[in-house]
Amino acid sequence: VRTAAGPGIVALVPLYRGSRVPLHRQIYDGLRRAILEGMLRAGQRVPSTRALAAELGVSRFPVLTAYGQLLHEGYLEGRVGSGTYVRAAPPDDAFRPARPGRPAKTAAAAPSLPSTPAGAARAARPPARPAPDEWAVRPFRMSLPALDRFPHAPWARLVARHAHRLAPVHMAYGDPAGLGALRSAIAEHLRTTRAVRCEPDDVLVVSGSQAALRLCAGVLVGHGDRVAVEEPGYPGAHAALGAGGAEIVPVPVDNEGLVVDALRDEPGDLRAVYVTPSHQYPLGASMSAARRLALLDWAARRGAWVLEDDYDSEYRYVSRPLGALQGMDAHGRVVYIGTFSKVLFPALRVGYLVVPPALRETFLAARDALDVFSATLYQLALADFLAEGHFARHLRRMRGIYLARRDALLAGLARHCASVLSVHNADAGLHVATLLPPGTDDVEVVSRLAAHQLTATALSTCYRGPARRPGLLLGFGGFDEATLMAATRTLGEILRGADGRQGAVQAPQAEA
Amino acid sequence: VRTAAGPGIVALVPLYRGSRVPLHRQIYDGLRRAILEGMLRAGQRVPSTRALAAELGVSRFPVLTAYGQLLHEGYLEGRVGSGTYVRAAPPDDAFRPARPGRPAKTAAAAPSLPSTPAGAARAARPPARPAPDEWAVRPFRMSLPALDRFPHAPWARLVARHAHRLAPVHMAYGDPAGLGALRSAIAEHLRTTRAVRCEPDDVLVVSGSQAALRLCAGVLVGHGDRVAVEEPGYPGAHAALGAGGAEIVPVPVDNEGLVVDALRDEPGDLRAVYVTPSHQYPLGASMSAARRLALLDWAARRGAWVLEDDYDSEYRYVSRPLGALQGMDAHGRVVYIGTFSKVLFPALRVGYLVVPPALRETFLAARDALDVFSATLYQLALADFLAEGHFARHLRRMRGIYLARRDALLAGLARHCASVLSVHNADAGLHVATLLPPGTDDVEVVSRLAAHQLTATALSTCYRGPARRPGLLLGFGGFDEATLMAATRTLGEILRGADGRQGAVQAPQAEA
Repeated sequence: VRTAAGPGIVALVPLYRGSRVPLHRQIYDGLRRAILEGMLRAGQRVPSTRALAAELGVSRFPVLTAYGQLLHEGYLEGRVGSGTYVRAAPPDDAFRPARPGRPAKTAAAAPSLPSTPAGAARAARPPARPAPDEWAVRPFRMSLPALDRFPHAPWARLVARHAHRLAPVHMAYGDPAGLGALRSAIAEHLRTTRAVRCEPDDVLVVSGSQAALRLCAGVLVGHGDRVAVEEPGYPGAHAALGAGGAEIVPVPVDNEGLVVDALRDEPGDLRAVYVTPSHQYPLGASMSAARRLALLDWAARRGAWVLEDDYDSEYRYVSRPLGALQGMDAHGRVVYIGTFSKVLFPALRVGYLVVPPALRETFLAARDALDVFSATLYQLALADFLAEGHFARHLRRMRGIYLARRDALLAGLARHCASVLSVHNADAGLHVATLLPPGTDDVEVVSRLAAHQLTATALSTCYRGPARRPGLLLGFGGFDEATLMAATRTLGEILRGADGRQGAVQAPQAEA
Repeated sequence: VRTAAGPGIVALVPLYRGSRVPLHRQIYDGLRRAILEGMLRAGQRVPSTRALAAELGVSRFPVLTAYGQLLHEGYLEGRVGSGTYVRAAPPDDAFRPARPGRPAKTAAAAPSLPSTPAGAARAARPPARPAPDEWAVRPFRMSLPALDRFPHAPWARLVARHAHRLAPVHMAYGDPAGLGALRSAIAEHLRTTRAVRCEPDDVLVVSGSQAALRLCAGVLVGHGDRVAVEEPGYPGAHAALGAGGAEIVPVPVDNEGLVVDALRDEPGDLRAVYVTPSHQYPLGASMSAARRLALLDWAARRGAWVLEDDYDSEYRYVSRPLGALQGMDAHGRVVYIGTFSKVLFPALRVGYLVVPPALRETFLAARDALDVFSATLYQLALADFLAEGHFARHLRRMRGIYLARRDALLAGLARHCASVLSVHNADAGLHVATLLPPGTDDVEVVSRLAAHQLTATALSTCYRGPARRPGLLLGFGGFDEATLMAATRTLGEILRGADGRQGAVQAPQAEA
């Protein structure tokens, strides 16, 4: 009978953060020693990489690297859907002809889903592969727009029209920069709503903002280069920018956004800096005009690139939005990144870059080597959707809807969670940044929420360095007012320990 | 008045292939010196990176790198659509407030397109950005399927059906592995037609085979690792595999595919080997069973990964196809790559990987960091297209169509081009590999063909090393018999110099 190695496994993997031994090596060494010394037995299940990373308080990448090595060397064996196990035979044995049976996943490990349409669709999957939490449509899921209020009819009509008309030229290989009509429509939108300085030829249509970040990394950042990011910041950007072997350098943010003085004090060369000036991810600040000018001045003088991720600038609830940083840049140092995931829907997979002319050819060649070009049908439909005014109408209509949802979330938090959770920023975008009392284990809170069908993001996971404020990032865009109100009640109960489990959060101190 | 620097610019950029100075540095040095010494004057136009690469007989990447550096340092200035120019002011001057006007692109540089629907659509673009040759649908264009014979009606019906029904769960973030229904359909197709050993969970749906290659590079190949590729081979793979700083090691192919003995003799570690066993790109050989076993044995003993690109295995005209290499692999060393670009159409942007279980989690995390997941609508339509039998029917029907097109191309080549061009391989796939007499400049031939609206690929551009056989790769999949017959006549005239230009190809010697 196989038994699971519980949270206690952390004790087998001592980590020394000041050490020169890389984290993945420390994790590998700890697990390997535990197996060789019999602390972990053959057939025993080890935690998922995600769970172990959360327990160790590290990012998932070193854990993945360590597991990969242990799987490769035969200390572990595994398969998604049934978990990872300590291998029955010693690693240097010959290949076994067949895999032994494995126990079914426990209910706790694969929570049953609610009987919404979403849940029903998921339930039709093969049972071996339950839907991970990350892409379930559950309250407080980040980055979800109001999919229920999307103008389905005109959109479906445009898609169907182009599907029926698809000409050979739109089935063959297309322009790596994107369809001309779509680039023109995007350029016009960005000029008029975001004060971005651009022509259609400056726009590059890509498969979402993550692909845009990866492209920036490939073109602008070499192996061993150093790239500054906001601390706390967007983990997806860290993953994309670090994928090619760059060093990620966290720089603090405050209520005016990135602290440019700290950037200036950074010793050594910095090749690029990644910022979210409209709505700092995750804490929510809008970068002040003074900081913007200081950042552009720093970039021009240092010859560094500024990667401006304008991921959800369209919705702002407390003041007029500032234009994009890119529009203030006189020296061609800013690469602007945008996406339709938040303003239309994520499964479109359409994002875009605005690239300084001097970089354009290089970006096009890199795009060709990355994924050649973007699917044409959605580009055709999207170009019409923008040109025919559906997009502008949709944006206008959504402002009121998101304001109502934000207000419902804030009201619910005030009523049900005020004693244990403080709102840090709710000025813009589709999520509210909240803080938990210092010392709270927000990752543990998030896993307790998951057991109650709530998907929040732990603020501490957005930090690269050791000093981490605990908090919860609560997405409200994808959920109506009644759902949010009910979810805040559950949230409050869980935070106060009223769900009958251990771990009630202590009442917070006043925020500094 | 600005003048163009003609082909003579090559004389200003002497290249020494045996040198330790990297090619991009040699190109940078040559151009910089030419500018500083006044051989290239302020305001003068330099060739496009593509044209200069062709003239120098190098890949485009070193040229892009050199131009990027010169643009960055202010020796050049430029903008796509109006070209790249030697900068008017010396590099260390301050930023200029405005750009001077530039002459319009000449007709020769932007050839007018035929008045097909394709041409008409292109003509609607802004004139500043003419369609590059690469994505025009013109005879001999590689990798184009028979778009005119695609079953539009059932496909459009499926797309429209799903567009009208799109549920919130299919608009939100989706599974990075791909829709379960599509993975099941792909796994079944691969098991039955390609003898690939896989379950749905082993399949990873990605945005085309280029993205699949890039993902393999990211997961399996580190900075400074060495990766073996076929010589000659697929330049897109070289670009993807080398993007993260790996060293590309060319290994010769013969009529049995990759020469595994040469791989064995390679000194130093090899992390992975990229092969096209079903239909070697570009020369066309099918890898023999003995070589396949030798390759798998080598990989298992060396702990190297085998990247099997099965890009167009479906159509074989002379014998029964062999199953995939992946199906013969007992040691989990093969990552299998496939695509719908050739069997359906490229603008779908759907490809897939079959990944050994031990690598799956790592691949999923890397996919998440690369572009998160693939657009859902096309996955839904595609899953139905496969499950409802449209796909199998389409494949069966296309076999006869491609056989007829291949035979028409071969007949046309025999009639019009036999004196100057020999067919090397036409056994499978959507292109015929031909050879030109030794010493022929095939890149120059390709640019003459382009002036006659023909898009061929120069065989020499598929080599990494210095020994390059000249030849033409002629795609036939996308063109009907009459078009191919007419195009071979034009091809013969151009090759024999009957188009009134210089550069007739000399009659070939018998092939060794």
